[in-house]
Amino acid sequence: MNNNYSCPLPIMRHKNIQLSHGAGGQLSADLINKIFLPRFTNEILDRMDDQAVVTLPEGRVAFTTDSFVVDPIFFPGGNIGELAIYGTVNDLSMSGAKPLYLSASFIIEEGFPMEDLHNIVLSMESAAKRANVKIITGDTKVVNKGSCDKIFINTSGIGITPSGLDISGNHLRIGDKIILSGTIADHGMAVMTSRNGLSFQSKIKSDTAPLNDLVETILKITSNIHAFRDPTRGGVATTLNEWAKQSKVGIQIYYNTIPVRPDVQGACEILGIDPLYVANEGKLLAAVPENDAQKVLSAMRKHELGLESVIIGEVVSAHPNLVAMKTALGVNRIIDMPVGEQLPRIC
Amino acid sequence: MNNNYSCPLPIMRHKNIQLSHGAGGQLSADLINKIFLPRFTNEILDRMDDQAVVTLPEGRVAFTTDSFVVDPIFFPGGNIGELAIYGTVNDLSMSGAKPLYLSASFIIEEGFPMEDLHNIVLSMESAAKRANVKIITGDTKVVNKGSCDKIFINTSGIGITPSGLDISGNHLRIGDKIILSGTIADHGMAVMTSRNGLSFQSKIKSDTAPLNDLVETILKITSNIHAFRDPTRGGVATTLNEWAKQSKVGIQIYYNTIPVRPDVQGACEILGIDPLYVANEGKLLAAVPENDAQKVLSAMRKHELGLESVIIGEVVSAHPNLVAMKTALGVNRIIDMPVGEQLPRIC
Repeated sequence: MNNNYSCPLPIMRHKNIQLSHGAGGQLSADLINKIFLPRFTNEILDRMDDQAVVTLPEGRVAFTTDSFVVDPIFFPGGNIGELAIYGTVNDLSMSGAKPLYLSASFIIEEGFPMEDLHNIVLSMESAAKRANVKIITGDTKVVNKGSCDKIFINTSGIGITPSGLDISGNHLRIGDKIILSGTIADHGMAVMTSRNGLSFQSKIKSDTAPLNDLVETILKITSNIHAFRDPTRGGVATTLNEWAKQSKVGIQIYYNTIPVRPDVQGACEILGIDPLYVANEGKLLAAVPENDAQKVLSAMRKHELGLESVIIGEVVSAHPNLVAMKTALGVNRIIDMPVGEQLPRIC
Repeated sequence: MNNNYSCPLPIMRHKNIQLSHGAGGQLSADLINKIFLPRFTNEILDRMDDQAVVTLPEGRVAFTTDSFVVDPIFFPGGNIGELAIYGTVNDLSMSGAKPLYLSASFIIEEGFPMEDLHNIVLSMESAAKRANVKIITGDTKVVNKGSCDKIFINTSGIGITPSGLDISGNHLRIGDKIILSGTIADHGMAVMTSRNGLSFQSKIKSDTAPLNDLVETILKITSNIHAFRDPTRGGVATTLNEWAKQSKVGIQIYYNTIPVRPDVQGACEILGIDPLYVANEGKLLAAVPENDAQKVLSAMRKHELGLESVIIGEVVSAHPNLVAMKTALGVNRIIDMPVGEQLPRIC
């Protein structure tokens, strides 16, 4: 399906995943030794115990988990494997932590093509290198045909949170500026338009990317960041609503400041979807005290993943727990949490 | 399905899981706030950020992950929820680590009964209390009906490995005694006999249990343990084979020493399954230097989870990388890694 990788599929006894590949016996060992270990190899994983033991620098440890069930598993701009690496790297980064180690746990449907698995694993290898993290422990389960849809991947991760940082969705303060690191809705619309045969003339690509380096860049400017979050499922609207409720503040944003690619905007209009609610996988929102906002913004704009960073709004004392957006017509409307499901299996 | 819990199901808008429960919006928040948070509550989880930040005591950190896909999800002696807690607690314990924090990530099929989810979560709460660990971060995905079989749970975990310990399947030495903490094959046969309407007169129950306290008990006797492992998928035979290959030693075991409950033995015979290859979820194998073996064994026999502990064999210089078993007839036969799948979705 997705063969533009330089590393050929190792010679395996089977071209498709068998139940025995998940049974803990010889075929499990074969799968681990030929597909996973050569790609993820490092001195910790290679010990092949049921757990990894690492020495961490002193300090606070950030810990997170995410299961990925995206459909389709290969989409414009990425696949489920790199999404699983970047998703967990980003969740760690949003606490200000430096991501260090990841686990990878696979649930695979019997009959899944070995070549697809290999390509997913290759892209996880590249993604882990790009994000500068190591995969140090893992697990593989195989379920009968029809008991899962192709492949699901869980990644969990640990990182070190520098002392002095206390970044949380609970810490927004009146006057904070809300900074967004670039265009919204790219990931969600890339998945949507590639699903069910929908296609558009323009090539909408997922923005999946590791945000840890951008976060490090920001934290070199100031450690005085109140909150970071990557607006994935539910999009920017959901993240801002969560923040408003967690911190019991109001958030005011401005419609005309929020960057959306024209082709993404077009696809949203055709499908009747509001880009504010669409998942991103390589963008962050930051709540930054007003005094630091301009220098943070300047630093972000010099980073390859923040070139289009903008201030989209601020934290206000009016309408606590609510997010309001000033529209193009000058009307201030409430941006609510979504109730229903716009886009299932987006990540 | 499994209603013998004291805590009633909270009043929810839906009796079954909807796609929207995994979409990150209002229904997701409802699920988290009514089903997950009240049961798993602790000061770290309750911050509701996308990652948990904890301060760990100085030292080495153990990290592990496991996805659980057991079928059926409720089986004699347990369910997928407590299995997910104990499985990861046990993987951490096998490095000698003290398990501290777990993540819990759910993949749920659209239409799954809310009451079953609630019962699973209640048993996870009890299991976490029994094992003395906290669930501090989580994730929920919902997939369309037919895209997964009811519910899958991933747990990952972190623990602290006391200094001075270096326990690994790579560390077996000639002369080590192999200690088994009790009867084998209980979990696998409990799941097998409850599946597909198979039933036996006797009540075979899963042995699912947290092994961290038993490990602590052993480590109080001596820190000189070469290896621990819980023989889950693939059973005792697979663990011993992995050890023999990792440490490049031979392992000799004796058939008549290995405890199997009569009803489990009977079920194995009816189904044509060798109990040595059947999964356990509350037993451990230890490779212990000969000088320490008797005192470790005595301590284990005083622990409620080790009452039937026995020495089942030793590490030998003959037949490196292989496991041999002296049978009832006095013949020494090779116990190989299983090739095929005896029991899919056993954990």
